[in-house]
Amino acid sequence: MKVVKNVLEMQKIALKLKLSCKTIGLIPTMGALHEGHLSLLTRSTLENDVSIVSIFVNPAQFGPGEDYLKYPRPFKKDQNFCKKNNADYLFAPSVKDMYAESYLTYIKVEKLSEFYCGKFRPGHFRGVTTVVAKLFNISQPNNTYFGEKDFQQLAIIKKMVNDLNFPVNIISCPTIRETDGLAKSSRNVYLNHNERKDANKIHLILKKTANKIQTKQITFAAKAVKFMKISLLKIPKMSVQYAEICDPFTLCSMKKNIKLPARILFAGLLGKTRLIDNIEIRK
Amino acid sequence: MKVVKNVLEMQKIALKLKLSCKTIGLIPTMGALHEGHLSLLTRSTLENDVSIVSIFVNPAQFGPGEDYLKYPRPFKKDQNFCKKNNADYLFAPSVKDMYAESYLTYIKVEKLSEFYCGKFRPGHFRGVTTVVAKLFNISQPNNTYFGEKDFQQLAIIKKMVNDLNFPVNIISCPTIRETDGLAKSSRNVYLNHNERKDANKIHLILKKTANKIQTKQITFAAKAVKFMKISLLKIPKMSVQYAEICDPFTLCSMKKNIKLPARILFAGLLGKTRLIDNIEIRK
Repeated sequence: MKVVKNVLEMQKIALKLKLSCKTIGLIPTMGALHEGHLSLLTRSTLENDVSIVSIFVNPAQFGPGEDYLKYPRPFKKDQNFCKKNNADYLFAPSVKDMYAESYLTYIKVEKLSEFYCGKFRPGHFRGVTTVVAKLFNISQPNNTYFGEKDFQQLAIIKKMVNDLNFPVNIISCPTIRETDGLAKSSRNVYLNHNERKDANKIHLILKKTANKIQTKQITFAAKAVKFMKISLLKIPKMSVQYAEICDPFTLCSMKKNIKLPARILFAGLLGKTRLIDNIEIRK
Repeated sequence: MKVVKNVLEMQKIALKLKLSCKTIGLIPTMGALHEGHLSLLTRSTLENDVSIVSIFVNPAQFGPGEDYLKYPRPFKKDQNFCKKNNADYLFAPSVKDMYAESYLTYIKVEKLSEFYCGKFRPGHFRGVTTVVAKLFNISQPNNTYFGEKDFQQLAIIKKMVNDLNFPVNIISCPTIRETDGLAKSSRNVYLNHNERKDANKIHLILKKTANKIQTKQITFAAKAVKFMKISLLKIPKMSVQYAEICDPFTLCSMKKNIKLPARILFAGLLGKTRLIDNIEIRK
């Protein structure tokens, strides 16, 4: 596995691979790699000639007062992880190389970026779409891999790719969970012992709600949301940012009768740690 | 020459060309082709294996009340023009194919998009950068060709390409002029007989100002701007939107001493027709 830290070098390699008809899989990450990322990398190595893992803690997607500085950066560990799991390239550019001092260009997916997490993290998705477009242009992937845990992000990236005609397939992979149900996340390390013990309840409540909807015990969105919020707020130190039943494609929240398929989206703070999760409700 | 009207078909052709190691030149236009476009196409045919001319009157770059509907669309004439001048593909997509009803994604180059024409045409450059990025992703060019007549547009596109890491060379070509000096433009057809007779004075005044600066008869920007504006306002039916001396890279307008190289940028209305022009002032 080759570690590439320079943007132009990575692009040169990618363009050369493309001209030699190799298919490229890209796994864009912010590092602190876990089994969620592993599932993306494994799928990429099965589906492409070459797999590139990018590690870049993207300042453009963090707001003021967020955890940009304290975000975990265990580079050596990540490097071994990528190597062990058959990545061909680890692309880890510097902030300066990605965003020159004179940087001015941003991509925004309107509407989809403005609700849910977008409301609580203004500018976040603009930072995500901008860096993902840059990574596409640098790495020239045929296929890119994203986890369903960041469900709104996934929908926004799909929309950007479609709107801007990027010749890239977006492949989404199911959320990987701890044995007790908590969605794997690089931010879980922020949780203290008690918070960690309680954090699995989020998934259990989402699952229970989805089940009640699927079995038609609940048919009204408002009732489902109320059930969820009451249950969630029983978790100590939990403050809910949003808990909604939405259309899985447009992400529009359902207001009256729930129409399946649907998706439950959740974000909240457990103590000081922001956690998100979501679950599918099938037809 | 093949005419392609479908976005996915054009992209499929371009990706196939790329995989067979052909170099692609793209000339993005809004049609109503003239000798300015010809200079771009001619250079592309010399420098690339395949040249694609795109013709698309891009609604996203027109503001309310602008000339989107009346913009000339002589498609048959343009088609013959492209064929005669050795284009390999004429890509002419429909508005519906470029912007689906659910379209949401826009690219903005901050600051550079906000002054000069950006001030008088809010949203214009956002529309330009968005459509150009789409055309890049669809046509996969190695080289693209833009005229210097749209100098601010050129600077903004260069900035976008650099910031977003598009693997595309931007090649700028000198403004082509009528024999009396008027910059060739698809919008010149809007001028009536008398306006057309007066329109060449814009270039003459810009040239005279550049000359006075180069020969150090004028060294202060404010004085040069005053000289230009007084001269321009003597043209009947002329209202000046802006006339500035600026840095040719950052486009920042010079306020005190003029530092060379510089560029004079002009926009104004002659009757109801909006005209722009610019001129280099060499060191």
